[in-house]
Amino acid sequence: MGDLTGDDIQIKMFEPGEIVPPFSVLDAVAEGKVPAGLAVTAYSAGSFPGLSLLTTGYPFGLDTRGIAGWYYVGGGKEITQKLLNQAGVHGFMCIATASEAGGWHREPIETVDDFKGLNFRVGGIGGAVLNKLGASTTTLPFGESFSALEKGVIDGAELSLPSVDSVLGVQKIAKYLYFPGWHTRAAMAHFVVNLDVWNGLTATQQAQIEDACDAVMLKHFVVTDSLQSDALRKIEEAGVSLLTYPDDVLAALRTASEEVMAEQSAADEGFKEVYESMRAYHESLGTWINLRTVPEAN
Amino acid sequence: MGDLTGDDIQIKMFEPGEIVPPFSVLDAVAEGKVPAGLAVTAYSAGSFPGLSLLTTGYPFGLDTRGIAGWYYVGGGKEITQKLLNQAGVHGFMCIATASEAGGWHREPIETVDDFKGLNFRVGGIGGAVLNKLGASTTTLPFGESFSALEKGVIDGAELSLPSVDSVLGVQKIAKYLYFPGWHTRAAMAHFVVNLDVWNGLTATQQAQIEDACDAVMLKHFVVTDSLQSDALRKIEEAGVSLLTYPDDVLAALRTASEEVMAEQSAADEGFKEVYESMRAYHESLGTWINLRTVPEAN
Repeated sequence: MGDLTGDDIQIKMFEPGEIVPPFSVLDAVAEGKVPAGLAVTAYSAGSFPGLSLLTTGYPFGLDTRGIAGWYYVGGGKEITQKLLNQAGVHGFMCIATASEAGGWHREPIETVDDFKGLNFRVGGIGGAVLNKLGASTTTLPFGESFSALEKGVIDGAELSLPSVDSVLGVQKIAKYLYFPGWHTRAAMAHFVVNLDVWNGLTATQQAQIEDACDAVMLKHFVVTDSLQSDALRKIEEAGVSLLTYPDDVLAALRTASEEVMAEQSAADEGFKEVYESMRAYHESLGTWINLRTVPEAN
Repeated sequence: MGDLTGDDIQIKMFEPGEIVPPFSVLDAVAEGKVPAGLAVTAYSAGSFPGLSLLTTGYPFGLDTRGIAGWYYVGGGKEITQKLLNQAGVHGFMCIATASEAGGWHREPIETVDDFKGLNFRVGGIGGAVLNKLGASTTTLPFGESFSALEKGVIDGAELSLPSVDSVLGVQKIAKYLYFPGWHTRAAMAHFVVNLDVWNGLTATQQAQIEDACDAVMLKHFVVTDSLQSDALRKIEEAGVSLLTYPDDVLAALRTASEEVMAEQSAADEGFKEVYESMRAYHESLGTWINLRTVPEAN
């Protein structure tokens, strides 16, 4: 930001936990403890359920490219502003990563029945979906998931992007990594600014912050694409099979996902508004996405 | 740019042809006739063949998301700078659209043999590929292609994005629109600045121009995705069948494309450098692209 603004705006970065706990960035910015932060809005979804969809989208929903389209031209930016303002901040989608992996498994998943009684670590909406297929789910933190998987306390875990998981070393303890990441087609973070601080900025400063977020958005998801290639090689070299969930398993997950989204939409108006907006944009794009795609040769 | 820079940099836009002919923007900027411009670099490919790949990528190559990855993290930016500097300008990839359509046809394409003797309008590398399958190709300008197609002088035409073609009204005269756009998986334009002008800018001004291009890149390709949905509906309503080339036709086009790329790489060092760089990045991503993808439901 210093380069971009001739040092008019300078940002000093602090790591999560250094001055604010990692799960309360949005709340700390809203309360003015810090002027701005990079927030995972889902951590405030207890008060505002729609914020969870701003972090992960919905299962089988828009991928990163689609999420960017929804945000910039599908009405997403306006809905995002409204929800963030309700939560006491102004902000912009600033990071959107490539899709996560579907999940690490100790045993292969060959039929829908293989989810029955499966002990699986998965966060948020994905957990509610797997429960419908008979899985027992937990939201253990990353570190505990690793040892629980090692000891066989859980049979599998959805963690993060392959590039993150491989640094944690998950390839040493689970030998099947399944795709696609149906539950998190993209993972987003938002640059949020305290409302009073935001309103005190000049129009030029506001435009510079917004423009910087736009530039970061693009770079971030192409960088996360690129990182997965190296990570997948490393994971395969550790003896892990890279597999795709069978078509009928994906179909069952899709049906269960739609049930969960209908239930959660009925329970909260803000959630419903985000879901319907994302879904309408996705449906308008569907035919085009299929027509433009060329399967990879390798 | 006025908002972003507090009016330090202001850009006055001129339409193609208003002060510089549309095909010579890059040359006019290099010669200092105008300080900067938005250039289709392929129009200067006579002197620098690699510039054609900077405009369209290569057949069956990286799509828009992949091209952005190549540019930002796959070494593409450095190669782009080198080629643009050779051509007398400094510049950045600033626009990358969604894929083009494969082509409009008066009759269905059911086998590879249907390309034999077909009179087809297509520009650049795509034409050399179709020649290998026995088609006669021409690079008629857009306007003339329309009337040639109407009169049956040509049997088909590759033109642009569905959103552009539908405004021209091509749906009234050809009833089959084929996908995917194997020859132009993304279409790029570059913001180019005269070398002396560029070197006279401050570091902040240079960073602001680069950052603005990054922000435009992202918005442009998600906007062009969004525009295709409406265009396809309009095209279908005019009685056009939206089809996909059969798998064996695509396989033959892929093989012929690889032959053409090998020939053109052998003929020019700059072309070879761009192609090998794009291809290496694409190959590194291939497995990941297949694993992350979920086919659309509709």
